[in-house]
Amino acid sequence: MLFGSIEAGGTKFVCAIGDENFNIKDSIHIPTTTPEETLGKCVEYFKQFDDIKAIGIASFGPIELRLDNPKYGYITDTPKPHWSNTNFLGTMKKYFDIPMYWTTDVNGSAYGEYITSIKNHKPIHSLVYYTIGTGVGAGIVDNGHFLGHVGHPEAGHVRLKRAEGDKAFKGICPYHGDCLEGLASGPTFNARTGKNGKDVPLSDPSWDYVAYYVAQASIQATLFIRPERIIFGGGVVSEAFLDMVRTHFKAMFNDYLDVGDLKEYIQMPKVEHNGSATVGNFSLALKQYYKENIVKI
Amino acid sequence: MLFGSIEAGGTKFVCAIGDENFNIKDSIHIPTTTPEETLGKCVEYFKQFDDIKAIGIASFGPIELRLDNPKYGYITDTPKPHWSNTNFLGTMKKYFDIPMYWTTDVNGSAYGEYITSIKNHKPIHSLVYYTIGTGVGAGIVDNGHFLGHVGHPEAGHVRLKRAEGDKAFKGICPYHGDCLEGLASGPTFNARTGKNGKDVPLSDPSWDYVAYYVAQASIQATLFIRPERIIFGGGVVSEAFLDMVRTHFKAMFNDYLDVGDLKEYIQMPKVEHNGSATVGNFSLALKQYYKENIVKI
Repeated sequence: MLFGSIEAGGTKFVCAIGDENFNIKDSIHIPTTTPEETLGKCVEYFKQFDDIKAIGIASFGPIELRLDNPKYGYITDTPKPHWSNTNFLGTMKKYFDIPMYWTTDVNGSAYGEYITSIKNHKPIHSLVYYTIGTGVGAGIVDNGHFLGHVGHPEAGHVRLKRAEGDKAFKGICPYHGDCLEGLASGPTFNARTGKNGKDVPLSDPSWDYVAYYVAQASIQATLFIRPERIIFGGGVVSEAFLDMVRTHFKAMFNDYLDVGDLKEYIQMPKVEHNGSATVGNFSLALKQYYKENIVKI
Repeated sequence: MLFGSIEAGGTKFVCAIGDENFNIKDSIHIPTTTPEETLGKCVEYFKQFDDIKAIGIASFGPIELRLDNPKYGYITDTPKPHWSNTNFLGTMKKYFDIPMYWTTDVNGSAYGEYITSIKNHKPIHSLVYYTIGTGVGAGIVDNGHFLGHVGHPEAGHVRLKRAEGDKAFKGICPYHGDCLEGLASGPTFNARTGKNGKDVPLSDPSWDYVAYYVAQASIQATLFIRPERIIFGGGVVSEAFLDMVRTHFKAMFNDYLDVGDLKEYIQMPKVEHNGSATVGNFSLALKQYYKENIVKI
């Protein structure tokens, strides 16, 4: 059986075709321009393949997830030009009358890590997946289910204790200034140092500030969700960076609860090459396929 | 049918007997002294009643909730003298061979509010219940289920952005200093002003600081859990205080997501006289009764 995946990011879309074991058979990168052009290219791409059984879509947000809402399947009021109020799912459904699973980009990634843990015979029941990149977001799988009743988590916009030495920096979130995204996303390196994060050495204090804030996010996730693992993806994240995060976590958390080995607890994705969302999408597509076909029998 | 409830707090235990409609038939307050004496009095109390079908227990923590852990049913490493490593559930089971539901005090309260919303025909699917009292804790019901895989939430120990004017205050949490509990629990009034909170006028800046921190907790709960309601109980909370919290929430959250009317979204418990946990315990006892009896059939 063939399944489709769309990982819809603010910079590029990754469309892929996989099998029922979630192996990638083919994939393409599409630059994110206007909805018409970008979704048009997605449609063209999937039209090449016969007999796709279902598609999983993991989109940048905010998106509408409530099935009983008329805007279900839409990207809603995003600051991204052209994309506010885009009927993403409806557009795809117009061209492909097959089951589709609709969720956020970070939920897709979280689910990909969840499914991979099961495939690897080391099941994780509950996990939080943060992306620290152009923005900051989190997807949460709690005992196999996505968390969030009236919508998806938006854990990038919490307030934090400010780092000594960083207090003059106002933060760059257009809504909140110094929320987590405003203090720790990739573009904060440009705002603090005038350079891209990749050109700033790890010894620069800005990396330590960002690690301090990401450690606080890890503490929040620990205390609210009590997960088995917190996974960090996105352009800002490296193993060396996570070591700085672990050090701050240990100092601030003060062994308040037993979270096990910090190297295991706070880690990078197991799926390589930023592929977590694609694996998640294949498995969510499979899930939706069975759900809709059982209903139809 | 009769059900028992134990709301086990650090200062007092409330034991109660109720019917299948969760109406209280009888109740007693027992001061929290040693485990032997306090649990002994609980046993004596329930022995007066014939034919109690099941008991719900909502205890101060930290407690062990994992069914497969040998310490399931224990209060674990609490700073409260005498109570570390207390086999609470096992002690009760020794005297009463009936189904018992075991959870945290704040989960009991959260569930009481959840069940009451259903009884009132205004069902809330997901809610966060904070207590702001001697300590700070949160119980979370997400689509009818308690949140937390490896344990219960401990959302009182997150770090926060410090309020201007309050930065010299180091906070009183023995583990973290200036976490939420260290900055906003009842005893912080004594630490800041030398007076009990009830003797500090609402116009004192300390109330504004506490409201600012509690508003940040509300934002965290909103962004992680996306609940339909956040409920605040505990000795620090009053309607006038929640108005201050709502004002800070509105200013800091900047309408980032639609949470509806703030008066509805952030509110005090619907169950009167601090009775949320008792109602929750009765309903959890009933749930456990049916669960165990269905298994036995």
